[in-house]
Amino acid sequence: MSKPQPIRYEDASSEVREVFDDIKKVKGIPEVNNFWAYLASDPKTLRRTWDSLKQVMAPGKLDSVTKEMLYLAVSVTNNCGYCIASHHAAATKAGMTPEMFGELMAVVGMANETNRLVNGYRVPTDPGFDQ
Amino acid sequence: MSKPQPIRYEDASSEVREVFDDIKKVKGIPEVNNFWAYLASDPKTLRRTWDSLKQVMAPGKLDSVTKEMLYLAVSVTNNCGYCIASHHAAATKAGMTPEMFGELMAVVGMANETNRLVNGYRVPTDPGFDQ
Amino acid sequence: MSKPQPIRYEDASSEVREVFDDIKKVKGIPEVNNFWAYLASDPKTLRRTWDSLKQVMAPGKLDSVTKEMLYLAVSVTNNCGYCIASHHAAATKAGMTPEMFGELMAVVGMANETNRLVNGYRVPTDPGFDQ
Amino acid sequence: MSKPQPIRYEDASSEVREVFDDIKKVKGIPEVNNFWAYLASDPKTLRRTWDSLKQVMAPGKLDSVTKEMLYLAVSVTNNCGYCIASHHAAATKAGMTPEMFGELMAVVGMANETNRLVNGYRVPTDPGFDQ
Amino acid sequence: MSKPQPIRYEDASSEVREVFDDIKKVKGIPEVNNFWAYLASDPKTLRRTWDSLKQVMAPGKLDSVTKEMLYLAVSVTNNCGYCIASHHAAATKAGMTPEMFGELMAVVGMANETNRLVNGYRVPTDPGFDQ
Amino acid sequence: MSKPQPIRYEDASSEVREVFDDIKKVKGIPEVNNFWAYLASDPKTLRRTWDSLKQVMAPGKLDSVTKEMLYLAVSVTNNCGYCIASHHAAATKAGMTPEMFGELMAVVGMANETNRLVNGYRVPTDPGFDQ
Repeated sequence: MSKPQPIRYEDASSEVREVFDDIKKVKGIPEVNNFWAYLASDPKTLRRTWDSLKQVMAPGKLDSVTKEMLYLAVSVTNNCGYCIASHHAAATKAGMTPEMFGELMAVVGMANETNRLVNGYRVPTDPGFDQ
Repeated sequence: MSKPQPIRYEDASSEVREVFDDIKKVKGIPEVNNFWAYLASDPKTLRRTWDSLKQVMAPGKLDSVTKEMLYLAVSVTNNCGYCIASHHAAATKAGMTPEMFGELMAVVGMANETNRLVNGYRVPTDPGFDQ
Repeated sequence: MSKPQPIRYEDASSEVREVFDDIKKVKGIPEVNNFWAYLASDPKTLRRTWDSLKQVMAPGKLDSVTKEMLYLAVSVTNNCGYCIASHHAAATKAGMTPEMFGELMAVVGMANETNRLVNGYRVPTDPGFDQ
Repeated sequence: MSKPQPIRYEDASSEVREVFDDIKKVKGIPEVNNFWAYLASDPKTLRRTWDSLKQVMAPGKLDSVTKEMLYLAVSVTNNCGYCIASHHAAATKAGMTPEMFGELMAVVGMANETNRLVNGYRVPTDPGFDQ
Repeated sequence: MSKPQPIRYEDASSEVREVFDDIKKVKGIPEVNNFWAYLASDPKTLRRTWDSLKQVMAPGKLDSVTKEMLYLAVSVTNNCGYCIASHHAAATKAGMTPEMFGELMAVVGMANETNRLVNGYRVPTDPGFDQ
Repeated sequence: MSKPQPIRYEDASSEVREVFDDIKKVKGIPEVNNFWAYLASDPKTLRRTWDSLKQVMAPGKLDSVTKEMLYLAVSVTNNCGYCIASHHAAATKAGMTPEMFGELMAVVGMANETNRLVNGYRVPTDPGFDQ
């Protein structure tokens, strides 16, 4: 009974519909994904998160596929199942091939391993890196 | 007294020196960084980690700067200070500009935020993402 | 075959039943939740965890809804599905409305984002904060 | 050389100064903290992060001290040293006493413990929690 | 469509079959588990990961059950469901009894709790520990 | 000013001194470490944490060095600097040699790597592991 519930377009306020319409237009999709439908129960968070993501994920000095792969690398590290699935799809749409995904995963795995080797061996930062 | 200690070239076994020599040659640096000096207390881990990193970080379908940025994204998420410093330096050497770093950080921040929004709102995976 | 199994009241030792009875009395519930049934396979951990939680979660300088919301914030950050579901229910029972949950999630999301911005930008602690 | 550097008011662009001025006014402080000075190297992230935090941390259904304690709970879980120091200070300013901090820490500690007990015992969600 | 897919023996290249055959021989199992079937989509990562795990998990100064319990402790801390299930099974096979598992979980729980108490109370390292 | 402060024996209440005396006796040390001195600002958490640790870390089906190594594995995964230093010292005192530490670190590193490979490849649990 206390579980968060999604809000679908037909039940949404005009404030929420405005954000949904912009998401659909920018992404070129017929219906918003579950992420947005769930966030819609807090219209201010929906609006703020969409505005931030739209700005952050737009191609700039980094292109879309690089940004989506960075997103995926973080989501894999944090083990967010939904995020892994949705950003794998988005990265694929932006041009990530299975071979690129394989290399991404190899890097993410090694980084998580060596992060812990550094922690446990208590490696002090080399002077040159801290400038 | 129990703290892990680095092993420097002059005190290293021939087994360790062989790895150190390869690191210096491949990276084109006069001395190995602290990470390798500390790992050298376990020659098998030193060898295995270097062989893996050399393979994983070599340019392939992803170029060096992309791989270093993925490494940095994971290290920032895990808060590994040494790793952040060393891979920021490596990414910069491979071509990451301050503007690219700014965009990387914006993506890493948003991914860590939205990963938790997904967790808390218990968003179920859209059918299309799970295929 | 090696998977941990729950222990239900009818199969429990008197040592376990004593803890189950206290949980049911303090919480005013007819049956203990799965968490306690699984912990019961190690009666010492069951007893110690219940005694600790009973002390820690009792209203003190912080009231019950604040404590449950703190619990939820940690569980969302760690992505513990069971914990998110059970402490969302407990926080709701203690008075958390959907609007309060929305604000909680907004804070948790921003904290997870800015924690990483701090890591990546390597922000040194302001002198005033460290006193 | 590649390490991120802070931007101080006297060296800031008008775009950055505008944000700094708003931070100082809203918080009633004579100078922005290091966090903002470092973010200023990416004016878009500075602006977006400040606008988001200003909205999210404003008192609403949850008061300021509760929001700061939630922030602190997340930062302690993630081990972000700067964030722990700055939000401990902010929570104290908003009314958190040492006794309230003690209770907060007790909850955060227990939540991190029980999150892992749940993971390891693979506790399935009780039907009532998932509705 | 973009979801990673397993590669089964009958569809595998000779390069992959060679690794699969070695896994089956070393572990004494008729078929490789899902982990290896999924990694097989990137033969280099499959080979490297198997070679590393075979070296790291072989009994040495630590016996097999201790190594499997350490693996399980990390997997529980990170909440990797597959890893918890597979290494619980492997630890059990290597000699971990339910009583040993109960003690392992008690330690893992307390370590996750006290790690956060240390973070939040900002405990400085005692001089004797840092030598 | 708001930073947590340690409480030393000479300034401690009789309630705190009683716990300090027990810690010193059980551990055979002349003075409690910083961890306990900082926790002493909340006598209930001090008492509860000490009672729990004393029970959990006592040798049982697992001996002391195994328990300390599990503690260390978790602390390395979470990157708790104080905890890594203090439990490295404790594990060493209980019999962990540098060679054993090397093997521990190799396992912890690989577990953190493969945990993420599992996440990213979305590996489903093999039927046999979930029983």
